[in-house]
Amino acid sequence: MSCSPPLIAIDLEGILTPEIWIAVAERTGIDRLRLTTRDIPDYDQLMTGRLRILRDHHLRMRDIQAVIETLDPLPGALDFLNWARSRAPLVILSDTFYEFARPLMAKLGDPTLFCNSLEIDRDNRIAAYHLRQPNGKQRAVAGFKGLGFRVLAIGDSYNDTAMLGEADGGILFRPSANVAAEFPQFPVCQEYGELRVYITEHLKEDHDA
Amino acid sequence: MSCSPPLIAIDLEGILTPEIWIAVAERTGIDRLRLTTRDIPDYDQLMTGRLRILRDHHLRMRDIQAVIETLDPLPGALDFLNWARSRAPLVILSDTFYEFARPLMAKLGDPTLFCNSLEIDRDNRIAAYHLRQPNGKQRAVAGFKGLGFRVLAIGDSYNDTAMLGEADGGILFRPSANVAAEFPQFPVCQEYGELRVYITEHLKEDHDA
Repeated sequence: MSCSPPLIAIDLEGILTPEIWIAVAERTGIDRLRLTTRDIPDYDQLMTGRLRILRDHHLRMRDIQAVIETLDPLPGALDFLNWARSRAPLVILSDTFYEFARPLMAKLGDPTLFCNSLEIDRDNRIAAYHLRQPNGKQRAVAGFKGLGFRVLAIGDSYNDTAMLGEADGGILFRPSANVAAEFPQFPVCQEYGELRVYITEHLKEDHDA
Repeated sequence: MSCSPPLIAIDLEGILTPEIWIAVAERTGIDRLRLTTRDIPDYDQLMTGRLRILRDHHLRMRDIQAVIETLDPLPGALDFLNWARSRAPLVILSDTFYEFARPLMAKLGDPTLFCNSLEIDRDNRIAAYHLRQPNGKQRAVAGFKGLGFRVLAIGDSYNDTAMLGEADGGILFRPSANVAAEFPQFPVCQEYGELRVYITEHLKEDHDA
């Protein structure tokens, strides 16, 4: 038997909720907010550009929050999450910001979220963003392993592959064809039911290994 | 402004739930199960003794679980926990075991719990216990700091004082008079309302510091 209890590390956007920036782009009609790290690989350049676009359109924190409050978790996500949380400690690892994620977290029953912070100025504008640390998802998984956990990580895109590789087990959920082809070492799930099967297997190793 | 988002690390027994071994002692009438680390400072000796007592009384895992299922969170604990979880990422750090804590976690809305594991044999007896790592609470707090969090820790007894000292802020909740006297550097709260005030202050530092 393995002495290390399991821990589930799971990405947020694309796994449990819609992509927040895409939704903001759609709801505000600002197409340039659709750009992602696929279009602008340098994250700082991408985020600085996004904040400039918001300022240029006189969009304040409360406007963005109003958009995000209209979003719901993906169909089936809450049931899946409740199921998983009753079986193992679970931490959501995301590149989003606490100030954005709050309404979605409430709809998900306030699971534990490790992400980043925004700096809001006196005029309710987003003045700056602060990454908690570089490679935050991968380092969180490494940290959990250092605390004696056997980590199962679930993600969907390029920025998740380092944490999937770091984890004891990694699963891609609804990845793009590119990501699935480039990282054939990770099993691919399209439905929450399939994820449940993989998680159940991972939890069992606790007793069978 | 501090760039480090806050994280709440909180002990379980005595803070959110009754002491599990005390409850098992009361419900089973086995007084020797009331012994704690105050009576037997060596944890391995204490736990090995507890497991021997369970075997001597032919108590199996399911018997202990049946006792634990009758326990409820402390009055007001669930409201407090829900309030805290909606404000900051929260992880419960405990020396208990996943197999014991499960029914109490369900009653608390399945928060994220870092604790230890039991090994159950084919006859449903507790064969052994596995600590995730030595000094698990303190090391978890150190790990969260290493992931870029500003940690507020809440505990009640000797085995919490290392994590309180490791954290950026530490609070004693309903400690014994001994612990409060020996660790005057930590503020003492008796009610969840007082804890809310301290937590609110800690969260504010995010924007005022």
